Amino acid sequence: MNVTFHGRKKHFRTVTFDAKRNVVRLIEQRLLPHEFKIVGARDYRETAAAIRDMIVRGAGAIGATAAYGLAQGIRTFRGDDLKKFSTHVEAVYQTLKDARPTAVDPVNAMNDVRRAMRSGKSVAERQFLALAAAEEFANDDVRHCEEIGRHGAKLIRNGMKILTHCNAGWLAFVDIGTATAPMYAAQAQGKKFHVFCDETRPRCQGGTLTAWELAQQKISHQVIADNAAGHLMQRGEIDMVIVGSDRTLGRTGEVANKIGTYTKAVLAARHKIPFYVAIPLSTIDWNMKRGFDIPIEERSASEVCGAWGVITNPNSELRTPNSGRRAYVRTANPTSGARNPGFDVTPPGLITGIITPAGIFKPKELWKRRRQLGFNG
Amino acid sequence: MNVTFHGRKKHFRTVTFDAKRNVVRLIEQRLLPHEFKIVGARDYRETAAAIRDMIVRGAGAIGATAAYGLAQGIRTFRGDDLKKFSTHVEAVYQTLKDARPTAVDPVNAMNDVRRAMRSGKSVAERQFLALAAAEEFANDDVRHCEEIGRHGAKLIRNGMKILTHCNAGWLAFVDIGTATAPMYAAQAQGKKFHVFCDETRPRCQGGTLTAWELAQQKISHQVIADNAAGHLMQRGEIDMVIVGSDRTLGRTGEVANKIGTYTKAVLAARHKIPFYVAIPLSTIDWNMKRGFDIPIEERSASEVCGAWGVITNPNSELRTPNSGRRAYVRTANPTSGARNPGFDVTPPGLITGIITPAGIFKPKELWKRRRQLGFNG
Repeated sequence: MNVTFHGRKKHFRTVTFDAKRNVVRLIEQRLLPHEFKIVGARDYRETAAAIRDMIVRGAGAIGATAAYGLAQGIRTFRGDDLKKFSTHVEAVYQTLKDARPTAVDPVNAMNDVRRAMRSGKSVAERQFLALAAAEEFANDDVRHCEEIGRHGAKLIRNGMKILTHCNAGWLAFVDIGTATAPMYAAQAQGKKFHVFCDETRPRCQGGTLTAWELAQQKISHQVIADNAAGHLMQRGEIDMVIVGSDRTLGRTGEVANKIGTYTKAVLAARHKIPFYVAIPLSTIDWNMKRGFDIPIEERSASEVCGAWGVITNPNSELRTPNSGRRAYVRTANPTSGARNPGFDVTPPGLITGIITPAGIFKPKELWKRRRQLGFNG
Repeated sequence: MNVTFHGRKKHFRTVTFDAKRNVVRLIEQRLLPHEFKIVGARDYRETAAAIRDMIVRGAGAIGATAAYGLAQGIRTFRGDDLKKFSTHVEAVYQTLKDARPTAVDPVNAMNDVRRAMRSGKSVAERQFLALAAAEEFANDDVRHCEEIGRHGAKLIRNGMKILTHCNAGWLAFVDIGTATAPMYAAQAQGKKFHVFCDETRPRCQGGTLTAWELAQQKISHQVIADNAAGHLMQRGEIDMVIVGSDRTLGRTGEVANKIGTYTKAVLAARHKIPFYVAIPLSTIDWNMKRGFDIPIEERSASEVCGAWGVITNPNSELRTPNSGRRAYVRTANPTSGARNPGFDVTPPGLITGIITPAGIFKPKELWKRRRQLGFNG
């Protein structure tokens, strides 16, 4: 998407590859929204560290980063011994996989790269095919998000007020995003609408990343506390909800996504407000039989008990970027602990539709349409 | 309640009056939970400033503070001219009333003081009666909270997990609190239970004040993000919800309380979890005919876009009070605005019962029982 950078509007992907220098280039997402910076990972170990340390986060974005990282590592192999080459590939693969052990996208992306490489007869040919496959993965991610946008934009009418939760925007993918894709497509069609971004405690990705994205794209929006959506729905101020998903069960239509998604779905159902989930096909889990079995990561208490930001004066209502010092403040009582589940599961009955690159489906339709949606089992 | 202060356990009320020095003493709530400090307001203007600047907050607490402040101002009058005295009383009354113009408790409390004073025949007698009435208001507040505890404790069974939102604890009253009163009473009866404190963004009164109170009282508890309650309910980890109220409509049973209360009530209803509201009689509004008419204060965007806390290291999982520097950090994108409604309204159909000093009632019963509940209209 376009970012205004040093006063000039420029197009960026979250992840790109500089083939000449063999460097993976990433937007340093931990500094956003307070600073926009591109960093380079100069070898596959640095790329793995960037995934592990969350310089890059989000399903599609870490998938593409791992694919590029694998190609990057593969390209540094010297010699033409195919056996030694294979050993090297596996070492790179494992290092990148271990960076986020619970994520599924890096594994899928790297499997694509490995598979594509097999037809190569020499090391050099395989190195060439690996990079081509990584580029293809990234381009496919963009194309899929474009398709989500094309289908989802039909749902957005002029004057609508849309709620979104967390960040399923272009920062979570290579470009465009999933939950945001219908918004960007509708904007391109000249539609006017307003977006409420749930702050999304504890990590605040809605208030930081989604709000920053929408500001860059000049889409009308406001941040709200996670507590406020119910009241706004009650007063008729929200017309539609669009969120992303970390894992969607193809067999049941259940959706695992950032903690708080379920709450918004319950509220939307009560107020008869359409609730959509936008997903790339890669997040569909065709194996798991019930949402209750999805492992819910319990994260650090420090996320709930405090917040990261830039030290500033709360009374200066300046709407200008602030390059002050970043700091973590402990908000909660220091002698209290916390529970911090990272995700929750929304049942299909609360979901109006799932927006995929192949069209919009009822959650229960996914299984019936599994061939069309890429299930090979 | 008891606070461990300089290593010793000591009983404190949030508001007391030092008659010898004519000083209103207050817990400086803006420093909690990071620092515990008692401050003195040496004249009624300082007392009004303490209410305005939220050194003291919460319905019962500001009611008692205003009552003491009025007595404090009245006691400084010199002379025996009753007419001049009356003019002075009105000036003090107006100054204290203006400190929080939308609050109803200070007005009710000061009206009590003024009424009680009328039987006095001299200035000295009226000065004496004013202070006695203020003391009575504070003692009544404590007694009412005790009654709420007595009724509410019956609802708490051993092993229960209770969710509460915001702070309706003893810091919001003179002592004991409303939503917390059943917990303190149940604890005194030897019952064991666990409390989840909603962080309660944007001002975080759950994570700061309620968690601090419960820690002081050694009640098992954890802070959770406002987003997490739905998931915990889904997994059977919450057995009951108890919240307070800023205004309860006697005619309809609708409850206005901190933003996010409505969301928790919707979730509780879906999961068939009992949802109770604990209130003193002074928060019942017998006049208003529908909850939609309750004015919902729109607060500063800076609350949603950032957080106050103490600068610390998030990785030190130290559970010790930290006396580091207090700071405000901007969390949200600096070029984004926010919506910040302060309260929401929960309809009676979502409320299992209203715990009052006079017993527990269905929301719709309030009007039928209005004589018993102090309605004089």
